[in-house]
Amino acid sequence: MSKFWSESVRELKPYVPGEQPQDTQYIKLNTNENPYPPSPRVLARIKDLADENLRRYPDPNGIELRDTIADYFGLQRNNIFVGNGSDEILALAFYALLKQQQPLLFSDITYSFYDVYCNFFGIRYQQIPLTEDFRIAPEDYLRPNGGIILANPNALTGRFLELAQIENLLNQNNESAVLVDEAYIDFGGQSAVPLIEQFPNLLVVQTLSKSRSLAGLRVGFAVGDDPLIEGLERAKNSFNSYPLDRLALAGASEAIRDDAYFNDTRRKVIATRKQVTAELEKLDFKVIPSRANFICIRHQHANAADLYRQLKARGILVRYFSAPRVNNYLRVTIGTDAEMQTFLNTLNELLPD
Amino acid sequence: MSKFWSESVRELKPYVPGEQPQDTQYIKLNTNENPYPPSPRVLARIKDLADENLRRYPDPNGIELRDTIADYFGLQRNNIFVGNGSDEILALAFYALLKQQQPLLFSDITYSFYDVYCNFFGIRYQQIPLTEDFRIAPEDYLRPNGGIILANPNALTGRFLELAQIENLLNQNNESAVLVDEAYIDFGGQSAVPLIEQFPNLLVVQTLSKSRSLAGLRVGFAVGDDPLIEGLERAKNSFNSYPLDRLALAGASEAIRDDAYFNDTRRKVIATRKQVTAELEKLDFKVIPSRANFICIRHQHANAADLYRQLKARGILVRYFSAPRVNNYLRVTIGTDAEMQTFLNTLNELLPD
Repeated sequence: MSKFWSESVRELKPYVPGEQPQDTQYIKLNTNENPYPPSPRVLARIKDLADENLRRYPDPNGIELRDTIADYFGLQRNNIFVGNGSDEILALAFYALLKQQQPLLFSDITYSFYDVYCNFFGIRYQQIPLTEDFRIAPEDYLRPNGGIILANPNALTGRFLELAQIENLLNQNNESAVLVDEAYIDFGGQSAVPLIEQFPNLLVVQTLSKSRSLAGLRVGFAVGDDPLIEGLERAKNSFNSYPLDRLALAGASEAIRDDAYFNDTRRKVIATRKQVTAELEKLDFKVIPSRANFICIRHQHANAADLYRQLKARGILVRYFSAPRVNNYLRVTIGTDAEMQTFLNTLNELLPD
Repeated sequence: MSKFWSESVRELKPYVPGEQPQDTQYIKLNTNENPYPPSPRVLARIKDLADENLRRYPDPNGIELRDTIADYFGLQRNNIFVGNGSDEILALAFYALLKQQQPLLFSDITYSFYDVYCNFFGIRYQQIPLTEDFRIAPEDYLRPNGGIILANPNALTGRFLELAQIENLLNQNNESAVLVDEAYIDFGGQSAVPLIEQFPNLLVVQTLSKSRSLAGLRVGFAVGDDPLIEGLERAKNSFNSYPLDRLALAGASEAIRDDAYFNDTRRKVIATRKQVTAELEKLDFKVIPSRANFICIRHQHANAADLYRQLKARGILVRYFSAPRVNNYLRVTIGTDAEMQTFLNTLNELLPD
């Protein structure tokens, strides 16, 4: 605390990212990183551009990347916004679209940055409880609101809300923005992007951190009707005009282009998730059905916080959340088959017979 | 405009960066980029790290870079904050330190992002006119305020305010934060960084975009007393936890370490500035004394807006501002000796005898 802090900064409750140990080697299943490297084409392009032109500013409008993403979805450049990871895009969207008189709605168990953004910008919000089995019930969102944000698949649980249900919600909620945060969509979900032509209040946010194996490069994007994108541009150009560096813009463009590599790695993750889920159920774990690159699991007898510590002591990092309703669950990123076998073997040793 | 925009975003007046043409080749003297490439050590380090580890998140705390900068200044890690260019750091500092009941003070002619940040965060501000000859008069800032921000050397003019005057201001203004934006300090100014141990309300912001030739990599840093840095961290972790990618963190660290290269290139820029200033004065230009990598010039007869257009038509981009008091000036980045010779030759052709 300092007398030079603003009132606003005193009241913040900052986001706490998952542990990112910089030294010890862990089997790292705690921050939903992709176990497979980025496309070789991405790395080649970055090496190629690490040259004297780094003395120049990047393109503040990110044209190459926006055009590449627009082509990928069959849309126009003005439907695409790019940012420094989906976190930055979410922050700008909270400011530009979700900061309204009426409260913003999101579920009680979801990405824990949402209430942080609300505190940062002074946005009122209401948290809508997930059902007993951690489903989003769209009908619970049909109440006066200044916006709705859904993570789909949902953060923490991995549960997917069917597209028809989102479409139904959009049909009934057309006076405020609806943001669908699709950080994990490429691991088996169905994207809401095709709905943007029908719903001018729909913004879909995705990231290259997970399914494109580029958490280290910090690139995300949003897709929506032109005026929504223009609102984001206005906010961005009032905060930081050049959030994406030259290497990130180029590397990300190449990642979107290499569709074959992308499909290959995400299918591997999906296959591993299926196998691991079956094995965990044999070990008396309840596994919430996931379409993400992680699973949320609870053992019938063992305590989650204890398991987290025991796994960490044996070199395996998973994520434990102390929040109500989920404090007996562990969130486990899907690693390679070999990593997951080590994880399963270690659990076998740790669990009571 | 869209009915889904927030009130806040409707009222924004976004920053307009200098032109960044993506195709035509210009002699580009409009956005204060360094004419010399980054240190070869920077490029080598980036190529080296463009590997499979890009699938991993970067260090959210930027330890390597903060320690490198702390070593450079003989300070501690907790005195250093790093961000996605100095623009992002300024934005976070406006929120964390300068958003107060009393108005923020800055000069009428300065970096044009300051009032944009104020609009973004709803910060009251007062602009204090520079003197007739574009000097900051520190005594004019001795009035009730919620913070003071000075660009030194000043943006647009290049004029430097002596460190003794800043020290004097700090002695008389100790109840609010004073931010010194030193984007251009390495081209002949004297940094206020040594004053941070004496003044707990002083935050100094620098960038690697200019003197380290890394505009394309988006890295800046702030130096101040621990609690000020902690305030910035709180704001950052409520907006975007990972704004610096792996390549930016590593490349920037290497740039700070290569002190010999840094000193060599900045001295070349300073020498060129001196020569060009003398030549321009021979051509009847008034040149505001500059300690930056640009000069602000006015011709005794020729109209600045006309000159800007004529230069652009001949492949030379400089910056023209239509704001009052400076709308007959051009801001010209110091390029290589060869670029500046072409600039001078072109002026010679354009100007009336």
